[in-house]
Amino acid sequence: MSTAEPRWKRPGPAEGGWPERVEVYDTTLRDGAQLEGISLTVDDKLRIAEQLDWLGVDYIEAGWPGSNPKDDEVFRRARRELRLETSTLVAFGSTRRVKGKVDSDPTLRHLVEAGAPVACIVGKCWDYHVLEALQTDLDEGVAMVADSVAFLRDAGLEVFFDAEHFFDGYRANPEYSLRVLEAAAMAGASRLVLCDTNGGSLPQDVEETVRAVVGYLDTPVGVHLHDDTGCGVANALAGVRGGAVQVQGTINGYGERTGNCDLSTIIPNLALKMGVRTIPPDRLERLTPVAHHIAELVNVAPDPQAPYVGTSAFAHKAGLHVSAIAKRPDAYEHVSPEAVGNGTRFVVSELAGRSTVLLKAEELGLELDGPTVNEVLETLKQLEHEGYHFEVADGSLELLMRRATGWEQPWFEVESFRVITDDHPGPAGPVGEEHPTVTTEATIKVHAGGERIVSTAEGNGPVNALDSALRKAIGSRYPALEHVHLTDYKVRVLDTAKGTAAVTRVLVDSTDGETSWTTIGVSENIIEASWQALYDSLVVGLLRAEARG
Amino acid sequence: MSTAEPRWKRPGPAEGGWPERVEVYDTTLRDGAQLEGISLTVDDKLRIAEQLDWLGVDYIEAGWPGSNPKDDEVFRRARRELRLETSTLVAFGSTRRVKGKVDSDPTLRHLVEAGAPVACIVGKCWDYHVLEALQTDLDEGVAMVADSVAFLRDAGLEVFFDAEHFFDGYRANPEYSLRVLEAAAMAGASRLVLCDTNGGSLPQDVEETVRAVVGYLDTPVGVHLHDDTGCGVANALAGVRGGAVQVQGTINGYGERTGNCDLSTIIPNLALKMGVRTIPPDRLERLTPVAHHIAELVNVAPDPQAPYVGTSAFAHKAGLHVSAIAKRPDAYEHVSPEAVGNGTRFVVSELAGRSTVLLKAEELGLELDGPTVNEVLETLKQLEHEGYHFEVADGSLELLMRRATGWEQPWFEVESFRVITDDHPGPAGPVGEEHPTVTTEATIKVHAGGERIVSTAEGNGPVNALDSALRKAIGSRYPALEHVHLTDYKVRVLDTAKGTAAVTRVLVDSTDGETSWTTIGVSENIIEASWQALYDSLVVGLLRAEARG
Repeated sequence: MSTAEPRWKRPGPAEGGWPERVEVYDTTLRDGAQLEGISLTVDDKLRIAEQLDWLGVDYIEAGWPGSNPKDDEVFRRARRELRLETSTLVAFGSTRRVKGKVDSDPTLRHLVEAGAPVACIVGKCWDYHVLEALQTDLDEGVAMVADSVAFLRDAGLEVFFDAEHFFDGYRANPEYSLRVLEAAAMAGASRLVLCDTNGGSLPQDVEETVRAVVGYLDTPVGVHLHDDTGCGVANALAGVRGGAVQVQGTINGYGERTGNCDLSTIIPNLALKMGVRTIPPDRLERLTPVAHHIAELVNVAPDPQAPYVGTSAFAHKAGLHVSAIAKRPDAYEHVSPEAVGNGTRFVVSELAGRSTVLLKAEELGLELDGPTVNEVLETLKQLEHEGYHFEVADGSLELLMRRATGWEQPWFEVESFRVITDDHPGPAGPVGEEHPTVTTEATIKVHAGGERIVSTAEGNGPVNALDSALRKAIGSRYPALEHVHLTDYKVRVLDTAKGTAAVTRVLVDSTDGETSWTTIGVSENIIEASWQALYDSLVVGLLRAEARG
Repeated sequence: MSTAEPRWKRPGPAEGGWPERVEVYDTTLRDGAQLEGISLTVDDKLRIAEQLDWLGVDYIEAGWPGSNPKDDEVFRRARRELRLETSTLVAFGSTRRVKGKVDSDPTLRHLVEAGAPVACIVGKCWDYHVLEALQTDLDEGVAMVADSVAFLRDAGLEVFFDAEHFFDGYRANPEYSLRVLEAAAMAGASRLVLCDTNGGSLPQDVEETVRAVVGYLDTPVGVHLHDDTGCGVANALAGVRGGAVQVQGTINGYGERTGNCDLSTIIPNLALKMGVRTIPPDRLERLTPVAHHIAELVNVAPDPQAPYVGTSAFAHKAGLHVSAIAKRPDAYEHVSPEAVGNGTRFVVSELAGRSTVLLKAEELGLELDGPTVNEVLETLKQLEHEGYHFEVADGSLELLMRRATGWEQPWFEVESFRVITDDHPGPAGPVGEEHPTVTTEATIKVHAGGERIVSTAEGNGPVNALDSALRKAIGSRYPALEHVHLTDYKVRVLDTAKGTAAVTRVLVDSTDGETSWTTIGVSENIIEASWQALYDSLVVGLLRAEARG
């Protein structure tokens, strides 16, 4: 017969024989950045590191110093600007190149100069790659690893050794691949990280190989996995079952080819299903917001189907009753969605939280009565159905709530606008050829203080032109606008099936130097969506100025 | 030492102790159709069934007859129109509802009337769900299953039994869940399919449970899995290791919540890594085209990161490895991409070496001499510095390389264009209030075939309007453009510090129904960036049409 105990409880480390604590090593900033089509600025990288620290990963691999100017700047600015509370910064690199020249090896010197307390260096463990890719002999292959680890240890760094192609190498020539590991350990590496570089391993391969290495050497073992067999997550769990105490992966599984193993899934699997401690337990609920925030920074739409953190991960179809789930959630959901900061969602009757709205109103100093709260919830539901997303657009949410109380902004009224983009006669503008200059101008008709103002301004795009025209019209009347600046502009096409006729969502970030806010617009027309977000941005700016008096 | 034998060879069924042959049971048309946001027509479903038959799956679950008119029509038309050569059609349903009323149960009658040779019925195996969801006793729970299987057998159908919530039920009350399975087997079910309905199982759970059931009953066992722990694929492999001879899943992993286990990954894992026969071996190379074709029919952009079948699955960065891969592919790729109908792809970016550019040129059938290669590399470097990103924009890269050889597109020349966006007089358009309709029109002046054409078109945004105007101008002259469609439009603001005045990068994905390509535009002006990408998209479309003759 059934017992009252939740069904998702399983054997833990004691019964299963695996480690009680596993280190989370995040390589989103290096390996994750290899994902085709993404390109992160230095600022993006620092913001992502802050998110990872807030989540509580053990290690943040921030880049490969010396490989490009951007990664150097990341380490330079990280030293000055980042205040990490939980995570330790790691610099990535490779072993020395030239025989006997360890002291002058530029890669190793850059690792020391990066100023991170840990260096992780990758070295070859598959005899074929030593002989063919490095074109050297096996003894020199071992020496490259040993010399490099020792050099970095002598420079005062903790050293992790990423054993490239380990699983393939171990299958081809186990003696040699173990000899390389042993050399790294003897030279002072504190972690031996077995890498499935080509990503072709299955869980059984990983578990058996890790167990063999853990049985052979005393140095703690980690795993670095990719998803080429669709088993990236399972391979990480198998590695832990085999005795690995460190898992290297990326948030949302970013990475080249099919991606790295996905920490957003591995962390809750280990914590909730295998009883393994990873990030601080009270931070597990930060997982979904962090995964989504990093997706925003990387500018990749979050995968709604992602396990644990996807917006569909706990979505139930109509017919399954709320009350049934409330009575016995473990009979309908494999874990509690709140445990990972996600929530149960009912696809047809979407229940937005009254308490969230009330909390937000309190924060804004607004008093909402019962019917008004219902009106706000109805409007939210309708607008989110159309593609709005107020979770990120705090500025527009504030205006929506104020308007529900009957408030109207008193500063200006827009009668109409027009935006014209023109290219000057000349040859067409394909990539790689000279092309003519395109100009944009916006005309806006506005009423303010009983006056009708018609103003035209140029800009280097429609949003910029509209912004300039509106400021030109009302800026002298409202000098506070001078301090309001747009700091970011993001565009996402929501329904990709229809190409350029799809619905477009625009987010505008703004600041007045003291506070910052985000506003949103949604329309089939990108200009209209941008206009909505721009309009809200300036209204919030005036509100904030008024509040300060 | 290394041997010449490919490293991706592993133990097969004989050494591993698992089945030599596993049936592929596809439920894309039923469970896959539960994916949020998709909606398939009857035609779509029949076209998908044809693709599955061509791929060679054993069973195609086409729907739930009686549950809605669309599924009834699928079975009606399938009987008349589908000529399946490899696959067997399956009708899905559930066990009888009312005690003692098996003959008059509408679900069961619909299953018989559907005319498919196999019925798959789902029944409850978790005591909690029998007692609470069905509100009946455990003996009646067993009888519902036994009666229903016997009824369908008597009607001449082969019957598969989908054991709902089996893994959770088995953990809660193994005796009861086995008793249900046994009743189904005794009543004549030919497959007992263990379902991980909530999707929360890990591979070790699946393998152990399947092994226990296989040891307990003689009837062949299958598995039906979901991806809620990110282990859907690994769970299927674990099920086979435990002795399952049937895997139920969907192409591309479509399905509710996080999706069903992905057959596009499971089939090649079983075939190439575990030596298990699934679809006919000579059809494995149909996997990638079928996965992409079904994605088209379902109208979901194919995941570039998908294992085996994704466009990035065998994409290599940097110039480093090209010659090395040619020499020893198994040292750099976990399987041969051609085996699954995919291909090695060399991603070209500013980091690319000469060899990558040459290889890409060869792929395109272009002959580039030394100075031209240098010119291409220089241009790439310059444009990537400006914000272009050619590794994703294969279409624009192709044009860039063609132009380096002196080629110019012969089809049309754009003299100028103008885009006007207007909002009708009325109140301004903030979120949550009535706002006026915004209209956009584009005028374009084009020369084609010695003629000067001025054309104006409206659109629901500037890109759509420009696209329409250009097609209106030259579409009758180049009817191939009719088949060229934009499928996605992505915008990224590159330097976020400057807000709307920052550089904007636009990517446009296009298809002509047979091939697809991506083009790029970069400018401070979003309209100009969009125009560049749009222009390139249509030129590539005309090139492809010309190549086909």
